[in-house]
Amino acid sequence: MSGGMDSCVAAAIAGERYALYGLHASYGQRTEASERRAFEAQAAFFGARGRLVIELGYLARIGGSSLTDPAIDVPDSAPGTAEIPNTYVPFRNAHFLSAAVSWAEVLGADRVFIGAVEEDSSGYPDCRPEYYDAMNRLVEAGTRPETQIRIETPLIHMRKWEIVRRGAELGAPFGMTWSCYRSEGVACGRCDSCVLRLRAFHEAGVTDPIRYEDRPQYAKI
Amino acid sequence: MSGGMDSCVAAAIAGERYALYGLHASYGQRTEASERRAFEAQAAFFGARGRLVIELGYLARIGGSSLTDPAIDVPDSAPGTAEIPNTYVPFRNAHFLSAAVSWAEVLGADRVFIGAVEEDSSGYPDCRPEYYDAMNRLVEAGTRPETQIRIETPLIHMRKWEIVRRGAELGAPFGMTWSCYRSEGVACGRCDSCVLRLRAFHEAGVTDPIRYEDRPQYAKI
Repeated sequence: MSGGMDSCVAAAIAGERYALYGLHASYGQRTEASERRAFEAQAAFFGARGRLVIELGYLARIGGSSLTDPAIDVPDSAPGTAEIPNTYVPFRNAHFLSAAVSWAEVLGADRVFIGAVEEDSSGYPDCRPEYYDAMNRLVEAGTRPETQIRIETPLIHMRKWEIVRRGAELGAPFGMTWSCYRSEGVACGRCDSCVLRLRAFHEAGVTDPIRYEDRPQYAKI
Repeated sequence: MSGGMDSCVAAAIAGERYALYGLHASYGQRTEASERRAFEAQAAFFGARGRLVIELGYLARIGGSSLTDPAIDVPDSAPGTAEIPNTYVPFRNAHFLSAAVSWAEVLGADRVFIGAVEEDSSGYPDCRPEYYDAMNRLVEAGTRPETQIRIETPLIHMRKWEIVRRGAELGAPFGMTWSCYRSEGVACGRCDSCVLRLRAFHEAGVTDPIRYEDRPQYAKI
């Protein structure tokens, strides 16, 4: 649970069938304080039976991403470009999933839910279905024979607006979520993550309850 | 590079063809001080161009292993039992490899070497070839399209004594390695890891240069 809207909706979906344990990663990302607050609020909202915050400080030492390296600026959103943006943290989701699977194996949990989304995910390679197929094969090969953990990605084929719609139906606490890559406290409204979020709420016809410094024109409607 | 003999020999093999960067993980394991010293000495010996120590303190919080939980005793070696021993850390190697792949992608490195050994590895699921096949597929799916990283496991099909023999041929610094799961400073000679190591040196006809509290009979020859 990053604190963002996708993992919030994924948690709402998982919570329909399962008791929840919440995992959050702190990896030196710019907006960690806001993300952590969002995680704690959501974990309480969903009645999580356990919480685990993992510290992956070494991801910032490894670098290579504007999300973890203060020397690289987070760019304004540039939709339509095919390139992977500099917010990409190399092989990031493998770290989150490894921790989730280790914890799941100790807890005896059956499922790991992650709110990865292919279509609107800025082209990150670790948000594609084939990545999760490969990860599920790895989990099968790398855990005890009696362990049966499956990673589920209920949002992977959804459009961002569908996620908002589904979250609204399930009563997901969007007011407790944080998406901005750039600012703390009040969202910037201009980075990739803010722009995708605002467009999604707009297209879904749902009001985004959080505050923005600067809302793009189409979202003011 | 755990500090143990397998990763030491894997580094010696990798160093024949590649410039090396050394990665070590600290995850609350009992003998971390000795392992860390062994890593630093070996990284210097091999002339590593870079070193990265990752702190996975949350593995101890996740628990489930005698290697990271002081409340669970490390058992004496019980060869011949088919069960996975309690030194198994759930899904551990995925954490190490995720960090290695993230770092490799930023460095532009081609290969990740790991000293996993199937036959003498106490039945850990993440020491089998199919696990590394699955991991290589994950790396392909989860990194940038232009990234070409392969994980190599040069020891995976070797017997432990063959590893000692190969290391001796390559001049691997066995005196700088640490294998014991139980003690710091002087190896116990009785845990799984010590027993496998002593037997391997014995079978290879090579003298193990490190000190033991208590050498099993067959190793005194």
